[in-house]
Amino acid sequence: MTLINTLQQTMQKETIDFLYFDEPLTVAYLTGFESEPHERVVAVLVFKDKVWMIVPELEKQSAKAAADCDFILSYQDEVSPWSLLKDALQNEADTIKRVGVDEDSLVVSRYHALNDVFKEASFTNATPLIQNLRVIKQPEEISIMKEAGELADKALEIGMASLKTGIAEEEVVALIEYEIKKYGVEKMSFPTMVLFGDHAASPHGAPGSRKLQPNDWVLFDLGVVYNGYTSDMTRTVVYGKADEEKKAIYKVVKEAQEKAQSFIKPGVLAGDIDRTARRHIEEAGYGDYFTHRLGHGLGRSVHEYPNIAPGVELEIRENMCFSIEPGVYIDGYLGVRVEDCIYVTSEGARPFTHTTKELIELPVKN
Amino acid sequence: MTLINTLQQTMQKETIDFLYFDEPLTVAYLTGFESEPHERVVAVLVFKDKVWMIVPELEKQSAKAAADCDFILSYQDEVSPWSLLKDALQNEADTIKRVGVDEDSLVVSRYHALNDVFKEASFTNATPLIQNLRVIKQPEEISIMKEAGELADKALEIGMASLKTGIAEEEVVALIEYEIKKYGVEKMSFPTMVLFGDHAASPHGAPGSRKLQPNDWVLFDLGVVYNGYTSDMTRTVVYGKADEEKKAIYKVVKEAQEKAQSFIKPGVLAGDIDRTARRHIEEAGYGDYFTHRLGHGLGRSVHEYPNIAPGVELEIRENMCFSIEPGVYIDGYLGVRVEDCIYVTSEGARPFTHTTKELIELPVKN
Repeated sequence: MTLINTLQQTMQKETIDFLYFDEPLTVAYLTGFESEPHERVVAVLVFKDKVWMIVPELEKQSAKAAADCDFILSYQDEVSPWSLLKDALQNEADTIKRVGVDEDSLVVSRYHALNDVFKEASFTNATPLIQNLRVIKQPEEISIMKEAGELADKALEIGMASLKTGIAEEEVVALIEYEIKKYGVEKMSFPTMVLFGDHAASPHGAPGSRKLQPNDWVLFDLGVVYNGYTSDMTRTVVYGKADEEKKAIYKVVKEAQEKAQSFIKPGVLAGDIDRTARRHIEEAGYGDYFTHRLGHGLGRSVHEYPNIAPGVELEIRENMCFSIEPGVYIDGYLGVRVEDCIYVTSEGARPFTHTTKELIELPVKN
Repeated sequence: MTLINTLQQTMQKETIDFLYFDEPLTVAYLTGFESEPHERVVAVLVFKDKVWMIVPELEKQSAKAAADCDFILSYQDEVSPWSLLKDALQNEADTIKRVGVDEDSLVVSRYHALNDVFKEASFTNATPLIQNLRVIKQPEEISIMKEAGELADKALEIGMASLKTGIAEEEVVALIEYEIKKYGVEKMSFPTMVLFGDHAASPHGAPGSRKLQPNDWVLFDLGVVYNGYTSDMTRTVVYGKADEEKKAIYKVVKEAQEKAQSFIKPGVLAGDIDRTARRHIEEAGYGDYFTHRLGHGLGRSVHEYPNIAPGVELEIRENMCFSIEPGVYIDGYLGVRVEDCIYVTSEGARPFTHTTKELIELPVKN
């Protein structure tokens, strides 16, 4: 039973005749064909009984090799893929009465082009349909994500080992990204964050030339892409000795993370997971300093459906994958965040990353 | 005269009452505010006489600091920015009769949301409007792009210096990306390409574990992001000695690149620039092996409007910036590409990168 077959079953149930997807990660998810098409069209076309792809001529061979589909419609740069599609469909276009598109990723110009190809059809939003498929990970996806998680642990280890007095945030970033590629990592899943001291209190701080001093706190937020899947983790550690007040804040964040993580099981609501962490931080008096959602889904993309945030009524199911990342950010003083990404089993959450969440105090090196 | 003022003049001419942009690089271009909003809305709203922004609550302070605008509408994660916008506009929404959106970047779900906010308005495609503004670079943009170009030259130099027998493609990539960050580079403008021997004949080959051998040809395609602007260059060099047949192919590609580059001046057509290079390669008998467009625009994005491709009737104007990158790819034998990105002056094209285009033969190192 392939993912496409599952989609076709849903199409039957929802009386959709045709599905169009061109978000590159959805294309990779459905067909195995990875591409960075920029402004060119690379799309999967799911009919009730067949699958087509649209790809630029240049990509035809790679698409053929990667994807199991019935027909590949390829086009030269100077040709409109939409008129080719019209020609290829001939009278079939008129038999298509209901078209589903992913409204959260499809751009308006292509939407208009599709409207023009399927003049007789009504259009419906297939975003929930593809989200609900992608959100439940297959065993093979989870096993790749475990490897991506191990590589994130490794990257963090490299980062911690590189800390020495006077090193700049951006140097630590460069070292991590250089060394981790030796382990078969294609690329990082987002620009690696390494922030020293109160710089970590800025929720969107970027690593710069700030130099490490003894007893600085260091926030690492990083992840890798491995075989097309992402990892994401955060640890906040101390380079030297932690003072008691900051240690106490760390403890609150860590407990909030652990409480939320233990609360997870099939059937709970996403919003309630968020509340578990948020309430713990509020009760410790830091509620105003936890300024973002608790977590986000990940898979082929490092930020994808679902949102783990206040009020989200989504019911958690087995094999969903998402982050749990509470934080406390006090301007001019400290930023602490602790994050694991997890997958949901019948027994609860299992993390992809395994670095301890106990506060790490690293030796000062000159 | 700011860019927004220019937009407002165009709005008056085209009787557009309201423009909406949320493509992150367009937002950065118009306001100076750089962000990676993922699925969240960060948008610029241009009225005839004022400018608003929509940003997540978390980004409000950074947006305020970066952007000169009249009102920032900020929203918490659990709140719909569209209903906030409706409330903020009150009756003003009904006075807006014509709305322009960038149909090439706006997703359908947000398009529907805007349709709902501006119930009385007709919608028009503002893609050409913003493209025509972004395509002509300001002097400050060109001066940043010159620096980005110098850094690409530097990155290439690092790559060439790192070549030694037995080194893997991916190791060269890691070294380049590590070393260049020491020069203030935030990130590469795309994943660095380093391909050895006939691996470079695959138009979308990715660097891997292939090891360098004496007399291998090496294709470098790379660029950096510097102060929000990109560079992009390709050189194909020899690690050792070039044989005569391959040298002859290199000469054809280099001449095609130079001919096209010399042909550029205000008033010529993009398609004719492409034809200048393509004809040279065809006349040498390699026409079937030049399988892609000649070039693409660049600026904040490394692939943006315009296309320099067969048949494109766009008239080239002063201060446009784009790549000129002919190539010849012979499966199992050789891949050669030579690329400079240029800006157009009244006297012709000026490259952003200055590494020689004469064939470089590097010494073999063990």
